[in-house]
Amino acid sequence: MSRALRTGAVVLCFLVLVSTASAQTLPSWKAGDTKAAIVTFVQAVTDRKSKDYVAPGDRIAVFDNDGTLWSEQPLYFQFLFMLDQLKAAAPQHPEWNDNPAFKALVAHDREALAKLGQKPILELLALANSGMTVGEYDRTIRDWLAKQRHPKFKRPYTDLVYKPMQELLAYLRANGFRTFIVSGGAVEFMRPWAEKAYGIPPEQVIGSQQEVKFEMKDGKPVLTREPKFAFIDDGPGKPVGIYRHIGKRPIAAFGNSDGDLQMLQVTAAGEGRRLALLVHHDDADREFAYDRQSQIGRLDKALDEAKANNWIVVSMKSDWKRIFAFEQ
Amino acid sequence: MSRALRTGAVVLCFLVLVSTASAQTLPSWKAGDTKAAIVTFVQAVTDRKSKDYVAPGDRIAVFDNDGTLWSEQPLYFQFLFMLDQLKAAAPQHPEWNDNPAFKALVAHDREALAKLGQKPILELLALANSGMTVGEYDRTIRDWLAKQRHPKFKRPYTDLVYKPMQELLAYLRANGFRTFIVSGGAVEFMRPWAEKAYGIPPEQVIGSQQEVKFEMKDGKPVLTREPKFAFIDDGPGKPVGIYRHIGKRPIAAFGNSDGDLQMLQVTAAGEGRRLALLVHHDDADREFAYDRQSQIGRLDKALDEAKANNWIVVSMKSDWKRIFAFEQ
Repeated sequence: MSRALRTGAVVLCFLVLVSTASAQTLPSWKAGDTKAAIVTFVQAVTDRKSKDYVAPGDRIAVFDNDGTLWSEQPLYFQFLFMLDQLKAAAPQHPEWNDNPAFKALVAHDREALAKLGQKPILELLALANSGMTVGEYDRTIRDWLAKQRHPKFKRPYTDLVYKPMQELLAYLRANGFRTFIVSGGAVEFMRPWAEKAYGIPPEQVIGSQQEVKFEMKDGKPVLTREPKFAFIDDGPGKPVGIYRHIGKRPIAAFGNSDGDLQMLQVTAAGEGRRLALLVHHDDADREFAYDRQSQIGRLDKALDEAKANNWIVVSMKSDWKRIFAFEQ
Repeated sequence: MSRALRTGAVVLCFLVLVSTASAQTLPSWKAGDTKAAIVTFVQAVTDRKSKDYVAPGDRIAVFDNDGTLWSEQPLYFQFLFMLDQLKAAAPQHPEWNDNPAFKALVAHDREALAKLGQKPILELLALANSGMTVGEYDRTIRDWLAKQRHPKFKRPYTDLVYKPMQELLAYLRANGFRTFIVSGGAVEFMRPWAEKAYGIPPEQVIGSQQEVKFEMKDGKPVLTREPKFAFIDDGPGKPVGIYRHIGKRPIAAFGNSDGDLQMLQVTAAGEGRRLALLVHHDDADREFAYDRQSQIGRLDKALDEAKANNWIVVSMKSDWKRIFAFEQ
């Protein structure tokens, strides 16, 4: 083989290898600015020679769950679950028939619910989802998730995780990141399936918390659920949850709604290179389309902030080849 | 070589290897029942053929900090730090001169402090340790730890970590365990040094929490410390902290005082093989000797429970070759 031929062969092999690697990175993401911005960020913070290099211990990435890693329409899935627990407990609580929040909830009366505001609704749901041990509640959640089907997709709720985001989580971990969920939803509703769906173990799931109380019951130590919230991990609560649980400022944050704004602000405000990303629901055919006007997962202020600060906005329609693993 | 000789050589090599491995395991622990019980437990839960085998994902070990991983006498080190902050803030607070908790604290009046009870003392300390951002507070903690010396050992407080426990943490992790601190102390006081001292990253440090509040300050998002406790991770609070933060029942728990009792109970009550261990401070020469009568780190009820349930009780005097790394 001539020297020119040999050199040509080496170059060709190199190009094949590079293009293979690139096609294997985030395969459900279309080639384009969004994917390039993510890959460029990861390369910059992991390349020891880069001025933006970040030591592995500081590669913390935080992800909202509802609407960012899985669907949240027509209602947050955990809300549907808690509502089912309310209905199941109702026969033991005739006094609820006089409760305006109860009446509005069982009648799905959106107007009455909006008028009541969050507080009495959350209080009633917390009450109906308390009194049992955390072990009993965990079994109820697992049963519900196994049996119930999503109204639009007719599939288990846990099928509605976004394939491109699963790939992104795995890609970040392969590059030395530790990945955390930081969700307005309750920890106990996510932990049973987050490890299988996202590769995120229970201790890396941060969320809202109902009070639990230690007590001895029949000589056994148990934790019992109390009818009160201990912590709401949403909006300005998210940076608090991150501080309490992780104790380090993330270098990458992923959300989809105004409830993620403060988490993205805190992440973006750190020194050095940062990634702040919003998933924009603009695909009514394959999933749902909603933003500024939606009661669930409203994306309004955060969208303005994203534009003002050059955060990445993912178009589910244009940036993702497929949304769910079950799509053909 | 004859067959007998060859067999003999193989057996000899095997014995040398086994004894070397055993000498390398927990080198600061004396051979004896305590060390054997720990090693036997770890072998049982990691051997795939054992009936007590535990999958790596469920190998969770929790450690109290004060008195279990480092010293806590003559007063919890964090208490000394917070007291110094109180004294530093006093000139700006002339109104404290009429506060009985303030007077008792600065006079080190143990009788008055005991009479007042915990509540007004903690409230005043929380007040003196609030108002700043979490970043500013972190720098104050690091400065204090760098400058202050322990009254008995004349060394930085972070030198007073127990060498045998450092080895135990590393030994468990080498066997697929994830190790967590679960302390009555505040997270922000442990995180700056826990990774270097124990190999435990910030997100695996669980502790008491003062309230923090998200706000925008000069256009920057910050977290400010509030004069109020959000969570006390002690006694019955420890299983709550474990549930909130880890979401799995540990299979091994390590403590030294009555404040660790419920954490050990919850751990021991799980199905399958469990390890519950108390460090007993019985070495006045090398460290301190105290248990049932001590105001700091009282070990009374938990000692009775340990005896009733065959939990391991470590004698610092008899079971540990050395306590601190700086000992000759």
